[in-house]
Amino acid sequence: MKENIMSVNIYDVANQLESAVRNSDEYAQIKALHDAVNTNAESKKIFEDFRQIQLSLQEKQLSGQEITEEDINKAQSTAELIEKDENISKLMQAEQRMSVIIQDINRIVMKPLEELYGMNEAQGE
Amino acid sequence: MKENIMSVNIYDVANQLESAVRNSDEYAQIKALHDAVNTNAESKKIFEDFRQIQLSLQEKQLSGQEITEEDINKAQSTAELIEKDENISKLMQAEQRMSVIIQDINRIVMKPLEELYGMNEAQGE
Repeated sequence: MKENIMSVNIYDVANQLESAVRNSDEYAQIKALHDAVNTNAESKKIFEDFRQIQLSLQEKQLSGQEITEEDINKAQSTAELIEKDENISKLMQAEQRMSVIIQDINRIVMKPLEELYGMNEAQGE
Repeated sequence: MKENIMSVNIYDVANQLESAVRNSDEYAQIKALHDAVNTNAESKKIFEDFRQIQLSLQEKQLSGQEITEEDINKAQSTAELIEKDENISKLMQAEQRMSVIIQDINRIVMKPLEELYGMNEAQGE
């Protein structure tokens, strides 16, 4: 596993990783379910409303605005619609699995840098 | 370049990428300069002060707090100290180069997912 340690091009390996993501079962699932949601007018509308509400809640949080009871009610009622829509709930599960993979990739790739700065913190203060 | 498209394990490739980052010239430079800064008491103090100020400014921004003139003056005077310290300014340049690489990696790896959602936006609205 440690052969050819020298001069491996980071960008070559990053492109291999891109290809591995693109050809993964998880990606194929998201793609298929995404198509299923987008070709169903009802599913599509529910999904877009949900994304919109998520975005506006995120914006409010980031800008320090208060999240009102109305916001929460709106988010809850859309979440209920989503649970009932099999295409969307499956898509969200598939996205959740992919999100875990992406987080893992970030954690793995950042490990060398975290070791460096973790070391520093252990020394300091 | 497209050989063996099937069943490439994402985690295997992610670990190869981790190794490529760890063995890159850019990482070696950061490591060496980081050691140089941390073994010099004066450099170390300046660098830690700067990090602290950066963090507190970030926190203020994220929580929507006002950034005062005092904050800006403090950041500027520390930035001047940093420019004069060769170890730190070189370290920050090396970190900047690594940060570009990390951003590139993220952009490359996220491409398949962005294509999916970009497609959706082009269709919608």
